[in-house]
Amino acid sequence: MKKISGSTVTRLSQYYRILNDLIENNVETVSSSEIAQINSITAAQVRKDLSFFGSFGKRGLGYNTRELRNTIAGILGLHKKWNVALVGFGNIGRALLLYDEFRKQGFLFQAIFEVDENKIGRRVHGVDIVHVKEAPQILFSKEIEIVIIAVPAKNAQGIIDFFVGLGIKAFLNFATTSIHVPKDVIVKNENMSIELEALTYFLTNKK
Amino acid sequence: MKKISGSTVTRLSQYYRILNDLIENNVETVSSSEIAQINSITAAQVRKDLSFFGSFGKRGLGYNTRELRNTIAGILGLHKKWNVALVGFGNIGRALLLYDEFRKQGFLFQAIFEVDENKIGRRVHGVDIVHVKEAPQILFSKEIEIVIIAVPAKNAQGIIDFFVGLGIKAFLNFATTSIHVPKDVIVKNENMSIELEALTYFLTNKK
Repeated sequence: MKKISGSTVTRLSQYYRILNDLIENNVETVSSSEIAQINSITAAQVRKDLSFFGSFGKRGLGYNTRELRNTIAGILGLHKKWNVALVGFGNIGRALLLYDEFRKQGFLFQAIFEVDENKIGRRVHGVDIVHVKEAPQILFSKEIEIVIIAVPAKNAQGIIDFFVGLGIKAFLNFATTSIHVPKDVIVKNENMSIELEALTYFLTNKK
Repeated sequence: MKKISGSTVTRLSQYYRILNDLIENNVETVSSSEIAQINSITAAQVRKDLSFFGSFGKRGLGYNTRELRNTIAGILGLHKKWNVALVGFGNIGRALLLYDEFRKQGFLFQAIFEVDENKIGRRVHGVDIVHVKEAPQILFSKEIEIVIIAVPAKNAQGIIDFFVGLGIKAFLNFATTSIHVPKDVIVKNENMSIELEALTYFLTNKK
């Protein structure tokens, strides 16, 4: 598998969603220009992205939606369920646990790690809140591969270092701080106010 | 002002955060390579992004952190507060209201719009939940310019059409569905499971 850029991966995720919508609506074939239109990008970009993984489409016939969906799922690793742990059960953590989209896409919360004794021992939406010191056993027994960080910014680096030490290679980080990790570990930072700033840039400069 | 790409705007948001951190830590100057290192991009990219807006840095001396922060704030439209409305007070809406980062960056929730009679009339964290039919008056009186959509996917397009009709030009959309808007309106889609898929791609293809 050739290495592809982060923005290509993001577009594949978007195609994957569009294809799921089309399949739900019983659409059997789709052209690159139709995918492009839904996604507000060029048809040439769609064809380039998809050709990267081999040629799926038949000229003039477009892509079979199911075939293409399944191929993209394979590329993105969505042909299986992923076990996820959440660290931090504050406002963000609580919302993430209830965010249906994760479950729908095959991401299953298997544990919530906390240090707050008032929260530890509770079971929320079928998931146990446990002390972070139990992580070594639980990551192993629950086969957790992805850890979502929803702790205060000042604790994020220390928590991530701890989980890196336990062998976790992939983090989704909601703490708004710069994180340093070894080269074989990936951290995706989710900062919702950055999206808002794209809007204020637009509103400020459109006049 | 020249038009800059969405990815440049995102990087400016990241520089802005780094500069705020540096200023908090009493750092007075910073080089492009230091900014680059924190951000895991190249120094050349940082210089290119910043030169786009005129030359700030002094060769050999780096950038004055405060000056650069304030210039970027101006470009991104962060030199003022922004009044924001939230539509939908479910799990996502509740978490967004409590997401400190918005307030810290100058985004102020001025109204929550709902259609659920059980929620309407309540006041949460200083913000009134009102019926969406009151939007025409409230958007005007509260000078709201940005609307955050946290409604079920099937309602999102209709709600956005309604607010576009009321003159709103900028939306942050948490509903996971494709949205169509006129050319002079911007919608940023926030789908947290897309970030997770960048992780599963990494985990699936790293071996």
